[in-house]
Amino acid sequence: MEKIPVGILGATGMVGQKFVELLSQHPWFEIVALAASDRSVGKNYEHAMAWSMPTPLCRKIAAMPLSSCLPQLPCAVVFSGLDSSVATDIELSFAQAGYTVISNSSAHRMRADVPLLIPEINSEHLQLLENQQMPGALVTNPNCSVIGITMALKPILDIWGIEALHAVTLQALSGAGYPGVPSMDILDNVIPYIAGEEAKIESEPLKIFGNSCCERILPHSMRISAQCNRVAVADGHLACISIKLKKQATATEILQAWKEFKAEPQQLKLPTAPLTPLIYLEDNKHPQPKLHRHLGLGMSVSIGRLRTCSLLDWKFVLLSHNTVRGAAGCAVLNAELMAVKGYLKPQLIHV
Amino acid sequence: MEKIPVGILGATGMVGQKFVELLSQHPWFEIVALAASDRSVGKNYEHAMAWSMPTPLCRKIAAMPLSSCLPQLPCAVVFSGLDSSVATDIELSFAQAGYTVISNSSAHRMRADVPLLIPEINSEHLQLLENQQMPGALVTNPNCSVIGITMALKPILDIWGIEALHAVTLQALSGAGYPGVPSMDILDNVIPYIAGEEAKIESEPLKIFGNSCCERILPHSMRISAQCNRVAVADGHLACISIKLKKQATATEILQAWKEFKAEPQQLKLPTAPLTPLIYLEDNKHPQPKLHRHLGLGMSVSIGRLRTCSLLDWKFVLLSHNTVRGAAGCAVLNAELMAVKGYLKPQLIHV
Amino acid sequence: MEKIPVGILGATGMVGQKFVELLSQHPWFEIVALAASDRSVGKNYEHAMAWSMPTPLCRKIAAMPLSSCLPQLPCAVVFSGLDSSVATDIELSFAQAGYTVISNSSAHRMRADVPLLIPEINSEHLQLLENQQMPGALVTNPNCSVIGITMALKPILDIWGIEALHAVTLQALSGAGYPGVPSMDILDNVIPYIAGEEAKIESEPLKIFGNSCCERILPHSMRISAQCNRVAVADGHLACISIKLKKQATATEILQAWKEFKAEPQQLKLPTAPLTPLIYLEDNKHPQPKLHRHLGLGMSVSIGRLRTCSLLDWKFVLLSHNTVRGAAGCAVLNAELMAVKGYLKPQLIHV
Amino acid sequence: MEKIPVGILGATGMVGQKFVELLSQHPWFEIVALAASDRSVGKNYEHAMAWSMPTPLCRKIAAMPLSSCLPQLPCAVVFSGLDSSVATDIELSFAQAGYTVISNSSAHRMRADVPLLIPEINSEHLQLLENQQMPGALVTNPNCSVIGITMALKPILDIWGIEALHAVTLQALSGAGYPGVPSMDILDNVIPYIAGEEAKIESEPLKIFGNSCCERILPHSMRISAQCNRVAVADGHLACISIKLKKQATATEILQAWKEFKAEPQQLKLPTAPLTPLIYLEDNKHPQPKLHRHLGLGMSVSIGRLRTCSLLDWKFVLLSHNTVRGAAGCAVLNAELMAVKGYLKPQLIHV
Repeated sequence: MEKIPVGILGATGMVGQKFVELLSQHPWFEIVALAASDRSVGKNYEHAMAWSMPTPLCRKIAAMPLSSCLPQLPCAVVFSGLDSSVATDIELSFAQAGYTVISNSSAHRMRADVPLLIPEINSEHLQLLENQQMPGALVTNPNCSVIGITMALKPILDIWGIEALHAVTLQALSGAGYPGVPSMDILDNVIPYIAGEEAKIESEPLKIFGNSCCERILPHSMRISAQCNRVAVADGHLACISIKLKKQATATEILQAWKEFKAEPQQLKLPTAPLTPLIYLEDNKHPQPKLHRHLGLGMSVSIGRLRTCSLLDWKFVLLSHNTVRGAAGCAVLNAELMAVKGYLKPQLIHV
Repeated sequence: MEKIPVGILGATGMVGQKFVELLSQHPWFEIVALAASDRSVGKNYEHAMAWSMPTPLCRKIAAMPLSSCLPQLPCAVVFSGLDSSVATDIELSFAQAGYTVISNSSAHRMRADVPLLIPEINSEHLQLLENQQMPGALVTNPNCSVIGITMALKPILDIWGIEALHAVTLQALSGAGYPGVPSMDILDNVIPYIAGEEAKIESEPLKIFGNSCCERILPHSMRISAQCNRVAVADGHLACISIKLKKQATATEILQAWKEFKAEPQQLKLPTAPLTPLIYLEDNKHPQPKLHRHLGLGMSVSIGRLRTCSLLDWKFVLLSHNTVRGAAGCAVLNAELMAVKGYLKPQLIHV
Repeated sequence: MEKIPVGILGATGMVGQKFVELLSQHPWFEIVALAASDRSVGKNYEHAMAWSMPTPLCRKIAAMPLSSCLPQLPCAVVFSGLDSSVATDIELSFAQAGYTVISNSSAHRMRADVPLLIPEINSEHLQLLENQQMPGALVTNPNCSVIGITMALKPILDIWGIEALHAVTLQALSGAGYPGVPSMDILDNVIPYIAGEEAKIESEPLKIFGNSCCERILPHSMRISAQCNRVAVADGHLACISIKLKKQATATEILQAWKEFKAEPQQLKLPTAPLTPLIYLEDNKHPQPKLHRHLGLGMSVSIGRLRTCSLLDWKFVLLSHNTVRGAAGCAVLNAELMAVKGYLKPQLIHV
Repeated sequence: MEKIPVGILGATGMVGQKFVELLSQHPWFEIVALAASDRSVGKNYEHAMAWSMPTPLCRKIAAMPLSSCLPQLPCAVVFSGLDSSVATDIELSFAQAGYTVISNSSAHRMRADVPLLIPEINSEHLQLLENQQMPGALVTNPNCSVIGITMALKPILDIWGIEALHAVTLQALSGAGYPGVPSMDILDNVIPYIAGEEAKIESEPLKIFGNSCCERILPHSMRISAQCNRVAVADGHLACISIKLKKQATATEILQAWKEFKAEPQQLKLPTAPLTPLIYLEDNKHPQPKLHRHLGLGMSVSIGRLRTCSLLDWKFVLLSHNTVRGAAGCAVLNAELMAVKGYLKPQLIHV
């Protein structure tokens, strides 16, 4: 199969680098363009940023010159790791020029005609694309904390329904981008606030779990309360979850639901899909960011400590790798799902 | 005024060292005995442990030889920083020999005839002592996380009543004693479990807030759900709190209640009482362990981020210094309150 | 005594904040002006920066509006915590306008007519001021690592002479200013490089230990080799030192020389002078940044592990608080020494 | 090829776990026995320790019961990750019972008849085995810091000779085993002392670089001075090196020598041999533990910052993964070399 040429917007940032890492050996996609802000344009990729991914940067991509974030890239599909501040306009300009934009930015997540997509949860939301009034297309993935939380909730929601969700997160440093949190602010410390994060956790799941109906998404009705903390962890967002169900469940049934959970990405054997999307760990002290963030190559969500909650019904802890499953990895999985379903057209945009 | 001679049980441990630090310059108490486990007995204090408090160990106490934890110490009042595993028997043996035992251990906290005392909250529980069937007396302070939480709740409870409490804690390393958490387990990590801690947070506040009636405490009826995490912070337990009130309150009223909160220790000007027991910080990013744990010399509780909760009524964050306000400092304040109220009798036990 | 009014240049930065902390309760100096970069001018001090010192910012100074770094401040003495990039011109403009500039910046440290002053070491270098061709005066303190190193070497140099110095430093995060080192770069890591630092350690001691002669300083002849590392420590620079002496010494003699070391600041009882400038710690595991950086209120240098070196003669470890003794504290001590010696004229500059 | 059955002594410790990780998929060796201290004997491996390696523990080994450290294991080759305190006797008992013991312990490293082996450096020292007066054999690898240092020095020593070595190390937490360094001792701190470590760095290289002659090793004559620090890094020992050469070299020549360095393990394509034993990194800020410890799957040594030293001749920084190249990985490579050279006899010991 010929690979689909793709570009990366915001290629020098944290999420952009993760896109490069995940796509540089991808069986279906080939990076043909890297775009970044004006001060990097023209530089070779390796000289435009400090590569901070765990695997080495491959030679070919290291030498690739950076382009502007203008819709003149030699590909029809672009991944966006842009900051939300600039993503609004740039992503639209690409979609309006005919590109399929697969974005990790929060800029367009809540637009009525844009899927907020997690392939294991709401692949049917892709039908929103048929209403998008743009030559191209725009698809987003949720916030890094939201992805892990909604994945762990999905099988429970399907079987018993969820009335209420209380989430307290302990989020990793890489979630703040680079340079992000100054070391003096976080060494021997916790920061009990992340700007904008709680609002995302309290709203995005409603769209993700919404029914697509009459060309739009009817938001789910669960009530959500979130509180977010930044902790001195490199990668891996932890969440302490309490939920109230609509129907009564037993612990055994919930564990079973998690264990058996498989969805379209697993059935379609998408290259980036984890074999086991949800992994329940028996040890009381698990999951832990350092030990479990890499499970399923960073695409699995780890869960532990299921027990009853004296206020709502159930409590548990979950962990997901915020830059893989919670960002670039989810976007790549979105693209893979779209490729299989015929939403990606590999032809070049004529500019 | 002649100082009251006191002893410290478990003097070499983390809490024991904090007792030594807080009592070595105390205006009312004088350390005359240090007791520890058998392998330390006979050694000078400075050679029996690695002093890890922020202020230097004073010469006189450094040279003090360690005694056994037997009720033969030359004082009538002992502070206990013993591990719960050994505290049960040792503390009882002291109380039965006529000593007044002021304990930080969890061993006897839930005994019906033992006050679980925070001077700012439930000084009237001291009347339980009149029913203790022992020649001496036994008083305890609550768990390190519980103290900060209940102090922040106290003025709210008094005015509006509290139906439900949801608490997620991010707890410091010093809470685990020494050597405590291995560095390899916590560097770049969070451990979402602390053995026994959640049960304490779910039960101790019910006794603390209970009414003393007919020689016992009727536990409060609020429902509590807790989840505890260990984070890479030296000192200072943070808690993310959600509460449901019995009557409706406004944010302004709650802030006012916190601001105006003073209690007996402040009125009595007890030496260890903070001028301001509750400090509300306006900055969204506050309180933080590193910045605020030392407020009020470690005896104040810092609060921040009051906002509505879409599940319960209100959310906020609080911080308290776990080895000062949350342990030894609270015990010393308990002793000061007891001294003023005539519960400490400075005469020597005849052994 | 009427206090000498002083201003602080670069008041919002890390060193500037430390100046504010050290001077806000100073018995001889009174802060009357705070100056910073243009984007802060006009703001109240508390709103122009995030205060990150351990003690609270006093109300009066919090409300002080920020001025431009122009030589129009209502005082005759200014402390400079400016970045070297801008310090060169600004400090000169002040000195040429008649101000006495006491700088922590590296901009003018190596100028032939500028004292590179540590009061315990080379107070006689102040006579360089008599040759400065400026209406005001300009005095600097050395680099943060250099101060601790040269203080520990001073008594050894005086008695036995030093031929060679090998220094490997483990430097704290606060040395990089704010925001400084990104947390993702230093969590679970060491950075074996600090731009420009090794050159300073290899050159500044030669001037500090130089003889003032014929209106200039003849640099000392010792050979120096330095290597600098950044480590995940908030405050406190550690240095692993090896030295070759000119004459033979015994360990006992060296320990004695350190123990007895007192200098002019101690004899003059300058307010910021530590009682004991050099503190030798017997424990093999000492000094440690966390345990000993605050000794002498951050103005003492801690030393440990003296032992023979099989290449040079002696090895030892030293620690100094980089923002106190190694920066603002040394500058304040410089000012105190100058005040006593009549180099500070408290009258207002006429602008 | 039939795999050689091997056992692991001290299998539950840090080095033991790394042996299990490295050997569980090994093409030549098969783990048939795991031995540990008496309190673990009989337990399944997974229940006898907390697995802390980055890759998951394979099912088969997880279920393996632990044996005593007695020379009754069903294999002829054992790897020893024992603590030195117990290794002296146990390793001897195995060697005397006919086992080939490949040890990471320091117990027998300096015995005249025991090779202190790094396959890239001194494979000819294996001939010492011919003089060992034991039915079996005993081979050791050096200290974790020593291995990285001597590997970086090897090509320089061969070409120009080395007169003197000054090494200051910044060592990772995993070097202290588990539980090792308490988190409270190292958060926001450095410990400038590691018991026994400096003596090893000052002595082991002399044996490693010694000439094997007349059935023994004539130690090398270089003078060595070492200073060791513990830092808050999970894995990866960094060393700041200064060396004095016997003959003059240029930087280009030294870089070339490092670049071209290959040795027997590379020529023999031993399974655990890194393709590139020495990797020079051009960036001034490199090598860093977090970024480079995994190069060559943890078996390469990273070097950076070559520059002249004003005291000796050259300075540079080096990094090696302390539990892989610096411990279990080196031991496995030793075993592979011995297998190829006919020193391992796969037959069962008759017990």
